Amino acid sequence: MRAAIIHAPGDIRVENRPDPVVTTPTDAVIRMVATCVCGSDLWHYRGINKVKGPAPIGHEYMGVVEAVGDSVTTVSPGDLVIGSFISSDGTCGICTDGYQSACVERSFVTGAQAEKLLVSHADGTLVTVPGRPDKSLYPSLLACSDVLGTGWFGAVAAEVGAGKSVCVVGDGAVGLCAVLAASQLGAEKIIAMSGHSDRQKLARRFGATDIVDARGDEGAAAVKDLTGGLGAHSVVECVGTGESMKQSLASCRPGGHVGYVGVPHGIELTGKDLFGPMLHLHGGPAPVRRFLPDLIDRVISKTIEPGLVFTDTFTLETIADAYRAMDERRAIKAFISFD
Amino acid sequence: MRAAIIHAPGDIRVENRPDPVVTTPTDAVIRMVATCVCGSDLWHYRGINKVKGPAPIGHEYMGVVEAVGDSVTTVSPGDLVIGSFISSDGTCGICTDGYQSACVERSFVTGAQAEKLLVSHADGTLVTVPGRPDKSLYPSLLACSDVLGTGWFGAVAAEVGAGKSVCVVGDGAVGLCAVLAASQLGAEKIIAMSGHSDRQKLARRFGATDIVDARGDEGAAAVKDLTGGLGAHSVVECVGTGESMKQSLASCRPGGHVGYVGVPHGIELTGKDLFGPMLHLHGGPAPVRRFLPDLIDRVISKTIEPGLVFTDTFTLETIADAYRAMDERRAIKAFISFD
Repeated sequence: MRAAIIHAPGDIRVENRPDPVVTTPTDAVIRMVATCVCGSDLWHYRGINKVKGPAPIGHEYMGVVEAVGDSVTTVSPGDLVIGSFISSDGTCGICTDGYQSACVERSFVTGAQAEKLLVSHADGTLVTVPGRPDKSLYPSLLACSDVLGTGWFGAVAAEVGAGKSVCVVGDGAVGLCAVLAASQLGAEKIIAMSGHSDRQKLARRFGATDIVDARGDEGAAAVKDLTGGLGAHSVVECVGTGESMKQSLASCRPGGHVGYVGVPHGIELTGKDLFGPMLHLHGGPAPVRRFLPDLIDRVISKTIEPGLVFTDTFTLETIADAYRAMDERRAIKAFISFD
Repeated sequence: MRAAIIHAPGDIRVENRPDPVVTTPTDAVIRMVATCVCGSDLWHYRGINKVKGPAPIGHEYMGVVEAVGDSVTTVSPGDLVIGSFISSDGTCGICTDGYQSACVERSFVTGAQAEKLLVSHADGTLVTVPGRPDKSLYPSLLACSDVLGTGWFGAVAAEVGAGKSVCVVGDGAVGLCAVLAASQLGAEKIIAMSGHSDRQKLARRFGATDIVDARGDEGAAAVKDLTGGLGAHSVVECVGTGESMKQSLASCRPGGHVGYVGVPHGIELTGKDLFGPMLHLHGGPAPVRRFLPDLIDRVISKTIEPGLVFTDTFTLETIADAYRAMDERRAIKAFISFD
């Protein structure tokens, strides 16, 4: 099969690789229908995370099941499926609590930017898409696999709900999906922090009621001004830097909730940061599997259109261009089509 | 009046001071019926927190109202009252959310180790004790002012509830009260971390089902062993050091809740600490006022006896001995009687 391989920062190549095969009874192999480039792939592409290359890359996927192991019962060859970027057994105490991304048997999916993908713990990881959805829905369906699921978890972790004020820090695709989630979850005021007009526009379309262009202390002060001087009830942190985390804490009211889904780079909090502001903190790698059936339903029923985060489409053979477009922030998010 | 004054680390003296008087319409002055020494007073007594002395000290109190300002409506002269260690207006958006300890008008009470005390924002801070409780209830009533209220908030912040497993880190009076709170809140398994037989005994009396003597990684491993290998659903951190916080995080299962009420000294968490374990974190200075009416009811009805944390009784004139007894851990907590 053909697969994207990262060799070094900035060096993505498409190469021939052996087709994956079922090796344990809980495995499935899928043929890719759509994949994409994640903001977290850029940590490697930019050399901020060490590249142990050459290595397969990519962890967002929608595909058709080709083969399953003997013990797999919930998906069958021919099914159109979506899974999370972390495989989970679905049965341990952590999974049944809804924290599949911390499953005792978890493993991180990688190699989804390829024609085929091996998914372990298929029963606990994959969800079948009902019916035969129109291809126009593929971007929105694929978004469920990570970017929407992550933004959604960020909003849930921040306890977004009816009548609340929400601030979303980060205007990448995850942040924009967190805005969409906040809107779906009934938030009254949704403040998107963004300095880019194209992203501001999409944030508005997804339900943002206010846009704040400023950052840091100035940004937090602007959020307080918009929330009666107290700060937002819920803040969703979708960047992962020390600066963005501090800004998120400073934007939240005492007793409020900060949900963080940005992969952390350079975050350090002291006891004073934790104790004084009386915030609730929760986050981590999103347990996307918890939300997948609901999110797929919302896409199929055309209640939401998260696929709008895909501003550019590429093929697997031109995926290096997709990385460049995202790295240079020309694309919000790059869709990889297999048509 | 007579009042305890801290001059320097280890130097507590009882001196004459002017009686406090009502100066603003929301003030109350109370005549002390009972006070005590807090674990957090020891931070100053031990010189770990800087002493800006000579200064009044003490913040746990029960007293009889002597005078109130013109706008005070909920307490009257002659009422037996208990208040929180932080005064709060009771009306701002943060107070009405139940976070009175972060009230926009908050101030920290100090000078309660004295014959009289000025309490600002009396309506938002003080709660009247119903009836004429027997003096044998005074220790338990006084405990509501901070040590029980703080342990209770720690348990609530850790989302303790029916059927859950709880680990309490710290066997000081607050930790022991957190054990009591966990028991009252319906926890199924309550693991008290303690290496002292007297404290272990009280923890058992308050409802601990298991005692773990070990600390650090070994302590966390023991908690995991007691919770099916996953960690406790809820962990209450009642110490405040970097080591105890790390131990608390390590003792909690993914998706679980850590409530922290230990005043922080030397805590530093990285993004990795926050992101990977998928915990909920919440804590800070307890909004005791939220819980006071309920806690007083539980004491009056003899449902709970938190006053058992007071192992030794002193008078105001011998309060320096009370500090010594707590500093040397001979007393779990020292009660100051005004009989």
